[in-house]
Amino acid sequence: MRKHTLPADIERTSMRIIAQEMHDRGIAVPQEHQAVVRRVIHTTADFEYAETLRFTPNAVMRGMQALRNGVGIVTDTNMTRAGVSKLALQRFGGEVHCFMAEPAIAELAKREGTTRAVASMTYAAQQYPDAVFAVGNAPTALIRLSELIRDGLRPSLVVAVPVGFVNVVESKEELFSACETYDVPAIAAMGRKGGSTIAAAVCNALLYSAADMLDPSARGWQG
Amino acid sequence: MRKHTLPADIERTSMRIIAQEMHDRGIAVPQEHQAVVRRVIHTTADFEYAETLRFTPNAVMRGMQALRNGVGIVTDTNMTRAGVSKLALQRFGGEVHCFMAEPAIAELAKREGTTRAVASMTYAAQQYPDAVFAVGNAPTALIRLSELIRDGLRPSLVVAVPVGFVNVVESKEELFSACETYDVPAIAAMGRKGGSTIAAAVCNALLYSAADMLDPSARGWQG
Repeated sequence: MRKHTLPADIERTSMRIIAQEMHDRGIAVPQEHQAVVRRVIHTTADFEYAETLRFTPNAVMRGMQALRNGVGIVTDTNMTRAGVSKLALQRFGGEVHCFMAEPAIAELAKREGTTRAVASMTYAAQQYPDAVFAVGNAPTALIRLSELIRDGLRPSLVVAVPVGFVNVVESKEELFSACETYDVPAIAAMGRKGGSTIAAAVCNALLYSAADMLDPSARGWQG
Repeated sequence: MRKHTLPADIERTSMRIIAQEMHDRGIAVPQEHQAVVRRVIHTTADFEYAETLRFTPNAVMRGMQALRNGVGIVTDTNMTRAGVSKLALQRFGGEVHCFMAEPAIAELAKREGTTRAVASMTYAAQQYPDAVFAVGNAPTALIRLSELIRDGLRPSLVVAVPVGFVNVVESKEELFSACETYDVPAIAAMGRKGGSTIAAAVCNALLYSAADMLDPSARGWQG
């Protein structure tokens, strides 16, 4: 069998290539956003995200602080739940939750004549009102979160990155506007693009950066 | 709460928009490949995949037939495992496996001085030599599969769609070449782009198409 380069070395080299290509393409991103932008590009090989990722003021810092305080993450897919680094999250005492596949959510959705994504956000907002909400799939989940925020919900951060062709663009605009109005931190990928891996990448960028601040030698090469 | 359009209606509309935009952009895809190409675009909102997806002859038909015969799927990430439609797979008696997080794989990788991705492919090739191998993350997994194929492994299909900046482009070229030489069906996303959601999307397109052939009324609107 051929010898293989270690994943950590590959990631370090990848991040250098991404930083260099962003520079070569004339893409300028504020220092505060770089870890998130680079990790999303690392996950997609798509530099368009450098243009479409949008942040409310101090969203990165506030999201990192919340995660460091042990706040949990609520996702709208089991793919994103699988993709969030459990090792990094556990370090701060947090957990990651997805209620989409639970029978109680299917029942709630049926009773209220809505989608499971909507029902799972309603339920999560009751159980974990200060969580980081990471939505990579369902625009209806974002619409519901917008309603809940207008009604008083104050999550630690909303990661708003669904992908798709129907209601997706509008749902991100609506969510971002609600977050701006009510001073809720938000990180959104505007436009059609996004997805479960992007939602996980944003969460992991924040988790790794938060870990760096505690122990710069561990992952100091990151973003 | 606002009323929301049902996910199945949104998916139907999305697939119509994708087909229309492919037409408008002058993208022509062989009929045999359309379900896979459309589902990958549905998952990414990225029409570049229409240009980068490459298929060995009859890869779609042979992959569908294998899945319909109850062959399982081996993935290189738990995200892809989470994303494959268990409902569709179970209909044919198949299962989806990911060995990346198993302690025995970490030990094997350490003993052989290699990555967990490589060790998990070696192990899976022994346990499920005729599986569909869906690789959305690790180029080293593809390199190992190429070696195994040259040594006699004959999987039902390789879905070769890792994403990244180091060794990724080359690993897909090498895998595709090995598959062509030894008549192993392959579906690859050439270039840098790919990922766990794309690996799951290709598998799901095959599973849904296979189900359509049994029961066209159930999901007959699919790509």
